[in-house]
Amino acid sequence: MTRLFEPVVRVATTAFHHGEVSAGSRQVPEETAIALSYNRVGYAVMMATPRDLRDFATGFSLSEGIVDRAADLLDCELVTVDQGIECRMRVGTDVADRLARRRRHMAGALGCGLCGLESLAEATRAIPRVGSGLTISAEAVMRGMRAMAMQQELNRQTRAIHAAGFLDPADGSVLVREDVGRHNALDKVIGALAGAGRSAGSGVVLMTSRVSIELIQKCAVAGAPVIVAVSVPSAHAIRAADEAGITLVAVAREDGFEVFTHQTRICFGASRHVA
Amino acid sequence: MTRLFEPVVRVATTAFHHGEVSAGSRQVPEETAIALSYNRVGYAVMMATPRDLRDFATGFSLSEGIVDRAADLLDCELVTVDQGIECRMRVGTDVADRLARRRRHMAGALGCGLCGLESLAEATRAIPRVGSGLTISAEAVMRGMRAMAMQQELNRQTRAIHAAGFLDPADGSVLVREDVGRHNALDKVIGALAGAGRSAGSGVVLMTSRVSIELIQKCAVAGAPVIVAVSVPSAHAIRAADEAGITLVAVAREDGFEVFTHQTRICFGASRHVA
Repeated sequence: MTRLFEPVVRVATTAFHHGEVSAGSRQVPEETAIALSYNRVGYAVMMATPRDLRDFATGFSLSEGIVDRAADLLDCELVTVDQGIECRMRVGTDVADRLARRRRHMAGALGCGLCGLESLAEATRAIPRVGSGLTISAEAVMRGMRAMAMQQELNRQTRAIHAAGFLDPADGSVLVREDVGRHNALDKVIGALAGAGRSAGSGVVLMTSRVSIELIQKCAVAGAPVIVAVSVPSAHAIRAADEAGITLVAVAREDGFEVFTHQTRICFGASRHVA
Repeated sequence: MTRLFEPVVRVATTAFHHGEVSAGSRQVPEETAIALSYNRVGYAVMMATPRDLRDFATGFSLSEGIVDRAADLLDCELVTVDQGIECRMRVGTDVADRLARRRRHMAGALGCGLCGLESLAEATRAIPRVGSGLTISAEAVMRGMRAMAMQQELNRQTRAIHAAGFLDPADGSVLVREDVGRHNALDKVIGALAGAGRSAGSGVVLMTSRVSIELIQKCAVAGAPVIVAVSVPSAHAIRAADEAGITLVAVAREDGFEVFTHQTRICFGASRHVA
C-alpha cells in the first residue's frame, strides 16, 4: 500500500501546562524521504517537506551543478511509495554522461580512500563570484520580509517550517517556498525562479533561518547578489559571502537589520547616521 | 599559515534600527569544516562548532555505527589546517577492515548506480528499539531544561548555537554540549557519555532544537529512552520514536511541554488531569 504524504499532519499529544495534564492535538510538519534520480539512477536521498517537489528537484539539480539550466531537465515524474517519494528526472545524453563520469570519480575516491586533508580541500572549494550591480533600499528589504511572512501558509499551521523567498525590487512581489529544511526551501525558490525563466541576479533572496556556508554557496551558484535572513550568520558564511561578492543582511527583525558584507548594495536614503 | 578556529568570532556590522544607521559589532558562531578520518582515510566532512571535537568524533563514530564502543577508538589527534580541522582517529585492524568493506560496498553502489527506489529503501532502514524501563517526573524534566539553559555558554554570547544535554535523574545533573548544528550537538553528548563510560539508557536527552528523524535515529542507536526538545517534532520523527520505543517530549517551554509518544515513562504525580 502506498502512503500519501501531506506537508502538515495532525497528531495526538498529552499536554502538561501549569501543572495540569490534558489530552490534545497539534499540527506538525511532515518530513519525507525524497530520492532524486536522473534517468532512473539514484543520486541522493533528502528529507524534505512534500510540497513543490518539482521546484525542489530543479533547484537541487542546479545547486549541485548537475545541470546548468532548468531546460536540461527534460521531465520530472513524482513516484510515491511507502518509504517516500522518488523525483524521477530525465536528462539528455550529455548530462547523463557527465553524471556517470562524476559518479565514477566519487566511487573511485571512496574506493581508494581520500585522506582527511584531501577531503577537506575537496569540501571547501572556492565559490563563484556574483556580478550584479543591484541596489535596494532598506525600507524595501523590510517590506519584503513582511510580505514573505504573510505567505508562510504551512508555518502558520505548525510554527515549525522555514521559508525562503525571492523579492523582486521592481514590483515588491515575493515568491515564497516552504520546507522543514532551510536548504531545501532555498533550493525550491531557486528551482521555481529557474523554471519560470527568471534570473536570481535581479532580486533579493529572503530566509527565515540562520545563514550557514551552504546557503551562501547556493546563492553564489544561482548568482543571487543579496541575501537577507532572520537569524545570525556563521563566521564562515560571512567570509564566504565576502569572497563571493554577496551582500549579507541578517538579524532582520521588526525594527531593522544588520549588514555583514558588501553594504554598498543597501541604500539607506535619508536615514540618520549615528556614531 | 594555519588558522586558529575559535567557536565564537566578533565581526563588524552596519546596524539599521528604527530608521537609524550605525556601525557596530556582533559575536557570531564559527562553523568549521571538520574532516573525520580513520587510520588517515577520510570518511566525511562535517560543518561544526570547533569545541569538544573529541566528543564529536566519538559520538559521530558511534552514531554512524563505525565503532560499537568508545574504546574501539584507540586515539584521536586534531590537526588544524587553513581549510579546517582533521579529527584523525586511529582504529584497530578489525574496525579498519569493516570500514574498508563498507567503503567498497558504497563505491560499488555508486559505481553501478542504485536506482531511486533502492536508494529510498537504503535510506529508510528500520531503527533499533530501546529497552529502558526508566521513568521520570514532569517536574524533573522541567528542572533539566532550566539546568541546561544555565550552561549554554556559547549561546549566551551569540543567541545562535544549539545545545544538547543529558539529564541524570539520579542527581539532576545535566551534561551539556553546544554546536551550530543540532545533530553535532547530540553527537558530542553521545560521545562525552561514551567516553566517560556512562550509558545513555540511564537518563534523558535534552535538545534546544526541533526533532527530525535523524535525532531519533541517533537516540535509538545510543539506547537513549527519552528525548525532550524545545521545538516541534516532524511527523516522521514521531513515527520513528513510536517504533523505536522512545518517549518523545517536545514544545518544552517555561510553563510545560507536550508528550508525543510512549507517555508511560513520564510521571505526572499529583498533577490535576483535565478533560
